[in-house]
Amino acid sequence: MRENYSLLSKLSSPALAAPVIKADGYGCGVKNILYCLDSENVPLYFVATLNEGIEARAYTTKPIAILNGLLKGAEDEYIQHNLTPICASIDDVKRWQEYDAPYIWQIDTGMNRLGIRYDECDQLLAIHPRKPDIILSHFVSSEMPNDPMNQTQIDRFNIIRDLMITHFGSDIKFSLANSSGIFLPQQPHYDVTRPGLALFGANPTPDQPNPMKRVISYGARILRIDHVKKGESAGYNGTYIFPHDARIATISLGYADGIPRSLSGHLNLYWLDTPCPVRGRISMDLMIVDISHLETNPPEIGDFLELIGPHQTLEDLAERAGTISYEILTSLSKRASVIVI
Amino acid sequence: MRENYSLLSKLSSPALAAPVIKADGYGCGVKNILYCLDSENVPLYFVATLNEGIEARAYTTKPIAILNGLLKGAEDEYIQHNLTPICASIDDVKRWQEYDAPYIWQIDTGMNRLGIRYDECDQLLAIHPRKPDIILSHFVSSEMPNDPMNQTQIDRFNIIRDLMITHFGSDIKFSLANSSGIFLPQQPHYDVTRPGLALFGANPTPDQPNPMKRVISYGARILRIDHVKKGESAGYNGTYIFPHDARIATISLGYADGIPRSLSGHLNLYWLDTPCPVRGRISMDLMIVDISHLETNPPEIGDFLELIGPHQTLEDLAERAGTISYEILTSLSKRASVIVI
Repeated sequence: MRENYSLLSKLSSPALAAPVIKADGYGCGVKNILYCLDSENVPLYFVATLNEGIEARAYTTKPIAILNGLLKGAEDEYIQHNLTPICASIDDVKRWQEYDAPYIWQIDTGMNRLGIRYDECDQLLAIHPRKPDIILSHFVSSEMPNDPMNQTQIDRFNIIRDLMITHFGSDIKFSLANSSGIFLPQQPHYDVTRPGLALFGANPTPDQPNPMKRVISYGARILRIDHVKKGESAGYNGTYIFPHDARIATISLGYADGIPRSLSGHLNLYWLDTPCPVRGRISMDLMIVDISHLETNPPEIGDFLELIGPHQTLEDLAERAGTISYEILTSLSKRASVIVI
Repeated sequence: MRENYSLLSKLSSPALAAPVIKADGYGCGVKNILYCLDSENVPLYFVATLNEGIEARAYTTKPIAILNGLLKGAEDEYIQHNLTPICASIDDVKRWQEYDAPYIWQIDTGMNRLGIRYDECDQLLAIHPRKPDIILSHFVSSEMPNDPMNQTQIDRFNIIRDLMITHFGSDIKFSLANSSGIFLPQQPHYDVTRPGLALFGANPTPDQPNPMKRVISYGARILRIDHVKKGESAGYNGTYIFPHDARIATISLGYADGIPRSLSGHLNLYWLDTPCPVRGRISMDLMIVDISHLETNPPEIGDFLELIGPHQTLEDLAERAGTISYEILTSLSKRASVIVI
C-alpha cells in the first residue's frame, strides 16, 4: 500500500495526494490503513461520514475531511473531534459560518449528487461566506478517459476556480481527481488529488494494465474434508448433484463474509495453483469446494484456500459477480482477521 | 424480537428454542441482540465462528456453541472462553477427547457441508468418544415443506437418534429444526430448536403469510436537496437522464452500507407513504432519490427516508435484488447506528 501511495503521489506531483479511506478503509479497517499510511507525507484524509471521521481520529492527528457534507445538528461534533466538513450545499455553508474552523466546499460539476451546483456559485457568494480551505468536485466517468464528460467537468471547474481566486485571492486549494482522475491525460491534479481504491491495488485504468500493486489477499480455512457419493447433492436445496464420487472441503466463508451469493455455481477458490470449484449454493458462513482433482499434495483440515490473491484478483471476482471491484472490496467481512504485512 | 422469540418458543415447546445469532447477530450487532434476548429463558446460543463466540461471551454467561466446527489448533481458546464446539468431523471429535468440557456433534444427513456423515456413525463410535451433550443436524430445504428431502433427513436423524440412545443412554439432547424447520408439518423439534432469521422478522414460511413481527427498520438521512434540469444526468457514468426538470435528495446510504449496487435503477425509498425512485447508479456512500412528486409536505435536509420498514420489507428488497432476505440482512452496514427499541 505504501508503494501504491508513493506511485500515486509521484503521479500527482506537485499536487499532494490525500488518501480516501472511507467505508472503513474500503472494508479493510481504517485502523490498519492508517497504520500503513500515517508515517507517509499525507497532507489530509477523506472519509465519508462523521462517525468514520470520529473513528479515524483515534489513529491520526492529521486533518480529516468528511465527504458526506455537514450533517445538520451535528456541527459541534465536527469541532469536538477536529474534523473538517465538506459542505455539500449552500445550507451547509451557512451553518458553518458561526464556527471559526477550516472547511471545504464541494461544487457539483455534473454528478448531481453532492455539492453546490457549478452554475449557482453566484448564489453561494451572495451569502458572503468565509473563504474555504479547499474547493473540490468529483468526476462522473474518470475511469473512461474518452468520455467527453471529463473535459466538460474540467472546463466547469476551471471557471469556478477563476471565479473563486478572483473573489478570495489565490491561497485556496483545488481538488478534482480521484484515483482514475490522476491518470487522465488532462492531468487535472490542481493542488490536491484524492486516491482511494487505487491505494488498495484495484485498477484505476480499466482499459490498460493495472499500474498498482496487489494489496489484498483473502482466504479461509478448511473446516472439514469428506467424500460424497455420485448422485448426492451439495448445500441448500441440493442445487448441485455430484456426477461422480467426489472429495469436498467445507470452508469458513459465506455471503455474510461479503462473497456475493450470486457467485454460487461459478466461483473457484485456489489451492496452490489449482482452481477448485464451489459446489451448490454459497451459505451464510460456509461454502463447499470440490477438491477431487487435487491428487498430489492435497490440502488438509486447517489449510487456507485463496479467494483473492495472485490467482484471482478483485477485478476477476467483480467481473464474475457482475459488479465493480469497489463493491467486492467494501463488502468483505468485518469477520475476517486482517493481517497487515 | 422478544415477541418473535416468545412465539418460536411456544411453537417449539416442549423443545427449547436456542437462538442462532451468528454473522454478528445477522448484521444487527450481537451486543444488541443479546441485550434483547438474554433476559428471556434462553438455554443456549449458536454462533458461526470462534471469534463470534468470543465476542458474544462478553454479553452473556449462558452456553454458546460454535457451529463452524472445532478450529484445529484453537482448542484451548474454546476452553478459555467457555465456548462449546460443535464437532464437524470425526477429526474434531478426536481432538476434543482430551478436554473435559461439553461438546456437541453435528451429523450430516444430506447437506454435505458440515458434520459426520449419517452413514458413518459406526466409524465415529469406533473411536470410543465421550458422550456428547447435544447431537444436531441441519435441513437442506426446510423452507419448502413439500420437498421430500425433509422427511428423508428426519428418517436418517431418527435412526441416528436410536443408535446414540442405545449407545449412550437417553440423556443426550437432539436438535434438527432451524427457523423454517420449526414450522414443518412433521414438527421435528426434538429437544432443542435453532431459530435464527425468524427472530429478525423474516418469513420462515415463504409460501404463507409471515407469522413473525417486523424487527428491522433501516433508513438514512437526506444530506442535500437540489434541483436538476431536464437532460442532466444522475451519478456515475450518467446512466440516468432526467426527462424533466426534477427535485432530488441525496441520502447517506450506498453499497458500502450493504445495499446491492445491482438495485441501481430499480429501488425505491419511502418518504411517509410515498415511494421515491433512486436515480442513476448507487454509489459507495450515497444515492440520489427523485422527490419531484412530493409536493405537499416534502422532506427537508436531515430527514430520514425509509429503505426497510412498514412500506418495504426485507423480502421485498431481496426479491428486487434477486437474492434472499438472509443476504440483505447480513450485508447491512456496520456503519449504521443501531437503535434498539
